[in-house]
Amino acid sequence: MGGGTSIGQGFDAHRFAPDGAGRELWMAGLRWDGQGEGVEGDSDGDVAVHALIDALLSAAGLGDIGTLFGVGEDSLGAGMHGLPMLERTADHLRAHGFVPASASVCVIGNRPRIGARRRQAEEALSAAAGCRVSLTATTTDRMGFTGRGEGVAAIASALVGNPSGIPGAAL
Amino acid sequence: MGGGTSIGQGFDAHRFAPDGAGRELWMAGLRWDGQGEGVEGDSDGDVAVHALIDALLSAAGLGDIGTLFGVGEDSLGAGMHGLPMLERTADHLRAHGFVPASASVCVIGNRPRIGARRRQAEEALSAAAGCRVSLTATTTDRMGFTGRGEGVAAIASALVGNPSGIPGAAL
Amino acid sequence: MGGGTSIGQGFDAHRFAPDGAGRELWMAGLRWDGQGEGVEGDSDGDVAVHALIDALLSAAGLGDIGTLFGVGEDSLGAGMHGLPMLERTADHLRAHGFVPASASVCVIGNRPRIGARRRQAEEALSAAAGCRVSLTATTTDRMGFTGRGEGVAAIASALVGNPSGIPGAAL
Ligand SMILES: [Zn+2]
Ligand SMILES: [Zn+2]
Ligand SMILES: [Zn+2]
Repeated sequence: MGGGTSIGQGFDAHRFAPDGAGRELWMAGLRWDGQGEGVEGDSDGDVAVHALIDALLSAAGLGDIGTLFGVGEDSLGAGMHGLPMLERTADHLRAHGFVPASASVCVIGNRPRIGARRRQAEEALSAAAGCRVSLTATTTDRMGFTGRGEGVAAIASALVGNPSGIPGAAL
Repeated sequence: MGGGTSIGQGFDAHRFAPDGAGRELWMAGLRWDGQGEGVEGDSDGDVAVHALIDALLSAAGLGDIGTLFGVGEDSLGAGMHGLPMLERTADHLRAHGFVPASASVCVIGNRPRIGARRRQAEEALSAAAGCRVSLTATTTDRMGFTGRGEGVAAIASALVGNPSGIPGAAL
Repeated sequence: MGGGTSIGQGFDAHRFAPDGAGRELWMAGLRWDGQGEGVEGDSDGDVAVHALIDALLSAAGLGDIGTLFGVGEDSLGAGMHGLPMLERTADHLRAHGFVPASASVCVIGNRPRIGARRRQAEEALSAAAGCRVSLTATTTDRMGFTGRGEGVAAIASALVGNPSGIPGAAL
């Protein structure tokens, strides 16, 4: 289809660890202290970054986060925080002839409260992704699993350019 | 990155007021009579417009609806319905050198039933946003907080152009 | 606005039929055997395709899946599987002067497990839509209606080109 722009959609959700579990809370590439427990599971549970990675990989037709980082406690992703994962994703796209153009992610949940550090998070995400990344956050008004504080979710979308028009040309 | 197009993602959810609360039901810029109670909270609870505003602001890297309209009962947004909020958002984008290019919002919930007035709502939203805005609606088959009728949600995405390539040039 | 690219957002959710109902499970244009019951309702319940159709129609400003296929047991969509529905949607867009450019869909739920057949599904969806379609899948960590296995949801986004700049020119 020649050089063009394609779109990707991403979604992720993780369950918060129980109070007292002592898990760090990571979101949008940053650690959030004093805002309660982090997320259960093998990774740091950064739903904003995970959704962004799926959006970027989807836009390039390169699978999803599991394709690139593996799944489970022995996976590459289990030992990585969000920003280096996002950097590696952007590198992977460029190695396949794609260029991240723009991305946006919306965090859905009660915490962390993004507002005061949004600009800091956006700058960190944008530097890692190699394109401008916007971050918003909203609650679900005490409804559903995000509203009851059981967990947190994120929806992301991304635009990716393919200047050469030849997917995989740079492989 | 020169003049280009960027993407924004938005999400919003609000809880319906209890039966008998006498709240008007506003959605997608219109008032819906005879379709049950409106939404709790300080604003008119128009999740379609709120998600669109977050998508447009995100695409331009200009924060979110709270940045522009404030939060809580004394906020600017508390006294405004969806269409004037959307107009002000589009003005804000243009004042920063951005041009709304295209937007789309999907309402998730049992009511209002959008179908018969979709074209009317799309025309009103498009006029306010200064670009074509599409509106769809779906249910969640009696599942989750939207399916049980506790509340209503919306997911939006938007494209924004930056003809000058200089964000904030017009400030 | 001249020839340009517009964006569309789609969402769909369906409830799984009870165990023993004997419903085939269809998702992303494919039938998935040995992965449990299919979905309740009049259609085959392919949320990935339904969300993609809403995203494509929205991007073109041509209504939604109900506009094109009708609603209920006597509707056109009730007798069709996902891929022919997606083909017809793409034909409908082209007949109105639009060209599907790119689409992406994220399935949210416990099953089917997409991974092993993702490439096959993406090829089938892309052929039907006439543009590259990416597919990802994620769970909600046992939370919410998707996490409890009550049903399955999908979020899609699409880009559509309008080379003529005259919507409806080809009618
Ligand atoms: Zn994750
Ligand atoms: Zn709102
Ligand atoms: Zn459906």
